[in-house]
Amino acid sequence: MTTHKHPQPRGFDIIALDADDTLWQNEIFYRQAEEKLARLLSAPQGPEWVVQKLLEVEIANLQAYGYGIKSFVLSMIETAVQITGGRIQATDIQKIIGFGQEMIAAEIQLLDHVLETVAALSASHTLMIITKGDLLDQQRKVARSGLAGYFEHIEIVSEKTSDTYRALLEKYGISPQRFLMAGNSLKSDVLPVAAIGGTAVQIPHASTWAHETVSPHEESQTEYFVLEHLGQLPGLVERLAG
Amino acid sequence: MTTHKHPQPRGFDIIALDADDTLWQNEIFYRQAEEKLARLLSAPQGPEWVVQKLLEVEIANLQAYGYGIKSFVLSMIETAVQITGGRIQATDIQKIIGFGQEMIAAEIQLLDHVLETVAALSASHTLMIITKGDLLDQQRKVARSGLAGYFEHIEIVSEKTSDTYRALLEKYGISPQRFLMAGNSLKSDVLPVAAIGGTAVQIPHASTWAHETVSPHEESQTEYFVLEHLGQLPGLVERLAG
Repeated sequence: MTTHKHPQPRGFDIIALDADDTLWQNEIFYRQAEEKLARLLSAPQGPEWVVQKLLEVEIANLQAYGYGIKSFVLSMIETAVQITGGRIQATDIQKIIGFGQEMIAAEIQLLDHVLETVAALSASHTLMIITKGDLLDQQRKVARSGLAGYFEHIEIVSEKTSDTYRALLEKYGISPQRFLMAGNSLKSDVLPVAAIGGTAVQIPHASTWAHETVSPHEESQTEYFVLEHLGQLPGLVERLAG
Repeated sequence: MTTHKHPQPRGFDIIALDADDTLWQNEIFYRQAEEKLARLLSAPQGPEWVVQKLLEVEIANLQAYGYGIKSFVLSMIETAVQITGGRIQATDIQKIIGFGQEMIAAEIQLLDHVLETVAALSASHTLMIITKGDLLDQQRKVARSGLAGYFEHIEIVSEKTSDTYRALLEKYGISPQRFLMAGNSLKSDVLPVAAIGGTAVQIPHASTWAHETVSPHEESQTEYFVLEHLGQLPGLVERLAG
């Protein structure tokens, strides 16, 4: 046996996946609601300006409200009041509330390769969802997705920082070396996991919220894997364990 | 030794406490916001009618929005639009958003006996908070309360049914016979726990949301303890374990 000549194999006790825009479409519904808001307000400065104003309100409210659709709707209403100088009609406010209710009721759209990949991975590994946002909304999406049975653990957190991941690994008694996290967001799924010594995999999504982007400086020193789609994850897991 | 003559002692592996209106004031802030809303709208039908309309909107939205301040604010806005027939001013909508932001920022007011009782119980028992509502808001309240260090586990759930409690007991590997739950709400803290064979303790609070009340029929067959305040809980625990 000469296994000492090979690099140390990396088996994983838990493979964790982000949910929104990793397992199913999410951001696209926010973009659609933003477009509807811009159309409703039809500000002379144009739709991009409305979306920029909304982003500013959302970021100002993030600490108080956290993530999720209800926070987004409250910020849309606040933006509408601000932009119109208080002249928006109450019926239009009701329409904005309706945008949010449509988002809450929207059908789950699984991304390509998700169903078969999750099913395959669950046969060999313990799978966990780690997602941030609104508790009820995330639970509902997991239940509706048809994927719940493949995941042993579902963790809904209010923020995804290195401290969040460290606390989760401690809770489940797992070392970072035996933990893999895959998701679309560099800021939430990749960098904080790499920072604590876990294996981080980015699967970029075409649509990522502006507040989830990171500066080149933040990521320059970090090592992580990038895949085109979730279907490539089992191959990577196998190679790393080899 | 003649211990077999005594009733079976009930020791508890986990003592769980509700948070809102069991550890700290909560409902009072909702009542204050309702009063402010009624004053703002000054409907000819009177303030009680406004509050009744709001309750109807809240219950209609409960499945989509869940519990918590953001849900409440969205329902207040919807009620305001409805009641005024769409004639509410945008600046008044902004005031309603402000009512919610005040609630989010409000200081934690611990109820009487809570601090010393929780400290005392934590010396002899594993304590858990089981609370429903908004994830971020509940985490923030636990952190601000100064009580976090006394609780080994904090569970924030979207609904408190027998299934919820059964899943939690399974997760922690505890039998219902070794589980005590105390809280102010018959509907959420007491009846579902008693139904699965746990020890349930009600500590009524003067202010309980209308939707949290139960009909006499629901509670007629159930056995649970009622205490006047949390300071009486250590005595009960001791008696039951005796």
